[in-house]
Formats: sequence, C-alpha cells, structure tokens
Amino acid sequence: MEEEEYIDPSPVWDSLDIDLFLKVFAHTAFSPFFVMLIPTFYLFQGAKMTDPIVVNSAIYFALVSLFWTVKWCSRLYDNQANFLYAPPPLEWNEQIVVITGGSSGVGELLANTLAVKSVTVIVLDVKPVRTDNYNINFYQCDVSKWEEVDAVSKKIIEEIGHPTILINNAGVAQGKLILDLTPEDIQQTFNVNTLAHFWTLKAFLPGMIAKKKGHIVTMASVMGMHGVAQLSDYCASKAALINLHRSLRAELNTRYKCPEIRTTLLCPGHIHTPLFATIVPSHKFWFPTLHPIELVKRVIQALDSTHSQTIYLPFFAHFAPALQVLPGFASDFASWVSRADFAMEGFVKLSGRRDDEGPAPAVELQEQAQAPGNGHLKSS
Amino acid sequence: MEEEEYIDPSPVWDSLDIDLFLKVFAHTAFSPFFVMLIPTFYLFQGAKMTDPIVVNSAIYFALVSLFWTVKWCSRLYDNQANFLYAPPPLEWNEQIVVITGGSSGVGELLANTLAVKSVTVIVLDVKPVRTDNYNINFYQCDVSKWEEVDAVSKKIIEEIGHPTILINNAGVAQGKLILDLTPEDIQQTFNVNTLAHFWTLKAFLPGMIAKKKGHIVTMASVMGMHGVAQLSDYCASKAALINLHRSLRAELNTRYKCPEIRTTLLCPGHIHTPLFATIVPSHKFWFPTLHPIELVKRVIQALDSTHSQTIYLPFFAHFAPALQVLPGFASDFASWVSRADFAMEGFVKLSGRRDDEGPAPAVELQEQAQAPGNGHLKSS
Repeated sequence: MEEEEYIDPSPVWDSLDIDLFLKVFAHTAFSPFFVMLIPTFYLFQGAKMTDPIVVNSAIYFALVSLFWTVKWCSRLYDNQANFLYAPPPLEWNEQIVVITGGSSGVGELLANTLAVKSVTVIVLDVKPVRTDNYNINFYQCDVSKWEEVDAVSKKIIEEIGHPTILINNAGVAQGKLILDLTPEDIQQTFNVNTLAHFWTLKAFLPGMIAKKKGHIVTMASVMGMHGVAQLSDYCASKAALINLHRSLRAELNTRYKCPEIRTTLLCPGHIHTPLFATIVPSHKFWFPTLHPIELVKRVIQALDSTHSQTIYLPFFAHFAPALQVLPGFASDFASWVSRADFAMEGFVKLSGRRDDEGPAPAVELQEQAQAPGNGHLKSS
Repeated sequence: MEEEEYIDPSPVWDSLDIDLFLKVFAHTAFSPFFVMLIPTFYLFQGAKMTDPIVVNSAIYFALVSLFWTVKWCSRLYDNQANFLYAPPPLEWNEQIVVITGGSSGVGELLANTLAVKSVTVIVLDVKPVRTDNYNINFYQCDVSKWEEVDAVSKKIIEEIGHPTILINNAGVAQGKLILDLTPEDIQQTFNVNTLAHFWTLKAFLPGMIAKKKGHIVTMASVMGMHGVAQLSDYCASKAALINLHRSLRAELNTRYKCPEIRTTLLCPGHIHTPLFATIVPSHKFWFPTLHPIELVKRVIQALDSTHSQTIYLPFFAHFAPALQVLPGFASDFASWVSRADFAMEGFVKLSGRRDDEGPAPAVELQEQAQAPGNGHLKSS
C-alpha cells in the first residue's frame, strides 16, 4: 500500500472564484466568435435553417454580438475614436505620472510597476516611498491640503515638467458608525478622499489642457455606489468622486474642448492593502478580495489604450450601478449576501492615522495568508 | 362682427408639461383599476376570453398591476410595514422639526407651512428668518461648522426639547468651472452641502435613537446622480448625500436597530429659488422648473405617511438613476437634450455668498415671470 501524500489544495482553490469563471465564459459562451460556431456546425451537419436548434443558437449569437457591439460602439463614442484606426500607442517613456498616496497599497505597486517601464513617476504622499528605482521621485505632500498641493505642484512643474498622467489614488477610511465619527475623522475622510482630487486637478489639469493631452485616473470604489454601515463617510466621499468624474468629463468635452484628455474611473471591491487589511472578508467565491496587482494591470491597460473607461473589479462590482434602479430590497439583499454591513466590525485603522489618534494598536493580519493569488508577490 | 378679445394663453400653457400628463396617465392608462375595466367591458359586450383584444388588454392590466404591486411591496418592505395595518397617523403638534437653511427658498416655505400646522419649527440659518409665526424658532447657526451646530443643538435640546424631525436642506452652489473654483469655494460647497449633514446627524440623531422614533429628510438633487459642467463641486457634494442616506439607512436598520427612524431622500430637478435663480432654464415641457410648493407638499406627505421614501421630482428625475447603468452615450444624450452642461453659463451666485466674495451684483430675474404655476403664490 502506497503512502498517501498530503497535498494542500489552497493554491488551486484560492483563486477559484466567479471572476475566473467569467474569464473562461468570456472566451467561450459569451464570445461572439465561439458562439457563431454553434449554428454553423449544425448547418454543416445537415440541419436545416428552420430547425429550432439552428434558429435558437443563431438568436443567441445575435444577442451576444449585440451586447459586445453596443459595448464597443459606446467606448468608441466616448473616446471620439474611429472604426478603422486605433489610437497611436502611448509613448511610455515620455510620460510624467503623478500618483497620490503612492507610498503604500495600490499606489506603491503602481509606482514601482510604472517605474520599471521607464516612466517618470512622481509620488505624492505624507510618508516616504520605499523604493530603489531612480525613476520614482518622491515629494512629501499632504494632498488633503491645498496649500501643500499648490506649493509642491509648482516645484514639480519647475523641476520635472508638466505631468501628463494624474492618478488620484490617496484614500483613507475611518470604519466607525456615524455617531462615533469625530469631526476630525469626517473632515479627514473628505479632505483626503474627495477634496484632494479637486486640489490636484487645479494644480495639474491646466498643463494638460494647454497640451490637449493627458489622462486622469480616479480611484473611487464600489462603495461609492452602495452605502453600507460603519463606512458612511467613506461611501459618501467615494460617491462624490464618481460624480466628480462625470462632471469633469462633461467639462472637458463641452467647455474646455479637450475630449482628448482621458478620464478613467476605477470602482474596485475589497483590495488586499493596509487600508482595509482588518475587515471581515466576504464570501470568497462571489466577492473575492482583489490583489493590488489585478488593479494595477487594469490601470496600465487603460493608460496604454489611451481610452477613457470605467473599470469595475471584481465581477460583482458591475452590479453596483444596477442597485440604484432596483427597488430597496435588492440593495438590502446585496448587503445581506455580501455581509457588507458587518464587514467593518473588527476594523482597525492602520493607514492614514492622524497625530491626534496615536499609533495603531497591534493587530494580527491573519487574512494576509488567505488572500487569493498572494503567494507569488510580496505583500504590499 | 364681434370684437376679438385678446386672451393671454400663458396661465394655461405654463403648467402644461410632462408631469401634468403623467398625473393624468397615473389615473387612467397606468391605473390598475381603470385598466381592468377594458377587458371587463369587452367581455360584457360579448367578446370571448380568447379574443386578442381581451387577451392583450388583460396582459396589459397584469403588467400595470405588477408594476404597482412591486412598488407597493417594496415600500412596505422598506418600512417594516404590514399588509393589513397602516402606520398610526403622525401627531403633528407633538413634532419638533429642525430645518437647516430655513430662511430662504424651499426651507423658508417649508418652515412657514409646517408652522401653520402648529408644528414647533426650529430654523437654523446664517441669516434670520422673515416670519410672523410664533411657532418658528430661529437659531443663528452656520451649519457648515461643527462647533456652531454642537453649541446650538445643546441650546435647542435644553430650551425646546429633542427634535423629532430633521430636515437637512441647506445648500449652496458656486456655478464655476472646475479650474475657476477657488479653494474657499470648494470647501464651502462641501462644508454646507455635505458635512453639515454629518454635524446635524451627530447632534440630533442620538435623541431619535433613544426614543426609537424620528424622521430625517435629506435634500439631495438630481445632480447627485448626473455630473454636469460648471457644477462639479455641487454634483459631487450631492452624490455624497445620496450615498450618505444609504449608509445611514443601513446603520439604522442593522446596527442601531432603529428601523422605525425614517429616512426620506429628495432628488429634485431645478427649483425656482434664489439658489438657482440665474440659470438658463431647460425645455419647459420635458424639464419643467419646480415651484418650491410642489416639493414642500411632497415632504409633508412623506412626513405624514411616516414612511421612508425616495422622492424624484419632476418626472424626468426618475430617469437619473438609470443613467448609471446605461452606456455613456445615454448620459451624454441626457445632458444634450436638457442643455445641462450650459445651464450655468450666466449663473450669478445670489445665495450663500461669503464675506470674501462681497455683495452679489445686481441681476435681472426675468425668469421669475416665466416660472410655471407661480402666479398664485408669492415668489420665495
């Protein structure tokens, strides 16, 4: 009798979630090319044009094609693009990218990834960035304060040049019930999460408008479309960003006559970063936790395509806008099934602590080991 | 030959808009009772059950009924209500109502209307309320500042008692393009439009939670669901309110265990008040300007029903949530057809001017005469 070897199943099952299924479906059951083969093969096997199987699969093909056509046309329309010509490729080494909150989490990974592509990266953060890459320029700046953004931006424009890409990524969460939030908490949330976007736009948008070129990436959240308990200030500040993104798009198109300046909106779910390290993760299959690298990949794709877009990640985030049209019980169901109203119960604020809050208490980050697809990358 | 008398058509045609049509349709083509009569009458006239006219009108009746049933069930569910019993009527004369920004516009009319119903009204505003009604108590308070709200709320609770209804109505608009907004403008918009809601909730919600009773009315805007040019800060601040309303609902239901505290969200379109007196009105049929009285009526109905609800006014506002699910060109079409991106072009800030802005320039309010249904009421 052979000795049984114990095999840890986690490396395989950890990344088995709805997003993986969708990725597979996108290339099979939801791919127009693949679906087109079904009626074709039946016809070649001698089925008649009027056979139900041929008619039904042809209708299915038409619906799938319609979906992708609308999506594709919508994107072309949003970007004043042409059916025949793709936009010229982005010259990565000519870009000057400003990343707010680039010293931790998604911002840190993004800064390092762009720096490797020989992009000039400028990190604005309160704490210094840990990196050896000389393409990363760190400017100490509390982006929630207009005076600091104003001063630092002038310095940047003088020393490096006008930024061509602005990634508004800095964010903070308090994780308290509405009555437990102190006035300082609420001020900080809005100053960092929302007002900082206005400050950096005021600082860097004029340079982009002058050249009629640029890309502004807004890091919102799926929580900007759905209000949950213990995150009222965060949800409100992110909702503000989503609508700011829309107003900005409207102004660039109709008033500044700069449709060439691209705007990308990110609505991610829970990301595995210090900001939300201490939350209770939701059901792993339906509501997977994102690794920062997945978001960074999508941001770089968006910048590379030089097309404006809205990115929902992971898959469930696509349903967040629909909650606003559906009756109240749909929204309650979403909160119940994702346990969103209780996710923050054990929350400890690790990131963005103010002086008046003192140092963060020691917490065990047991979740670290559970995060999907985490093994091949050092945790950021 | 009789002499022709000139008849000014405006009193009739001024209020002929899509909302009037909808009001008529709601009692005819969209009323389940009315629609039920169609197949019934055909049957009585000798038509058979299988006749297309009977079948089709029965299907139409079923669809209309389904729509209202879902709406009705959704509302019952949202309010933990019962199919058999209506909630007890609101004792108006026991209510203590706090209205922020109650010295002008919708707030002023609401304060005066409630005061006539012998409700104790407390107006919080920077400028005194003009009224002779002794039911209106004025407390000078800049609701954008936590210190003032904190101090005044303690005084109110001591002198009058715990408010049972909180109407967060104060708002301000700058009407500038994103790069023209000064840091003070942006701060003011968020402090008045968004943070003030947090301050008043912190001040008055504990009293409601203690009694497990109360009603919080949030004055958002249809602009909280659609970003337009020259209103980026306003749109963002109102979007924040809409999501704050959702988080508040979630916390009251799941964490404070007070589903009995009601929350009503208002998403109105353009209202004829000093705040937006100087905008270019849109197409009068599809996008009518609201008179404050229409909004006040709906708020009083909502308070009277003691049910949480979301109020969209006028009719077109119902479509705003749908813009978030539709592709980008739908949103652009909405802006184009309503001319929303150009409505603010001649805007002059009359309401909520700060000391550093100086007095408002003189403007002709020619729109005053055009506002629909304005004749029978003194303009507010």
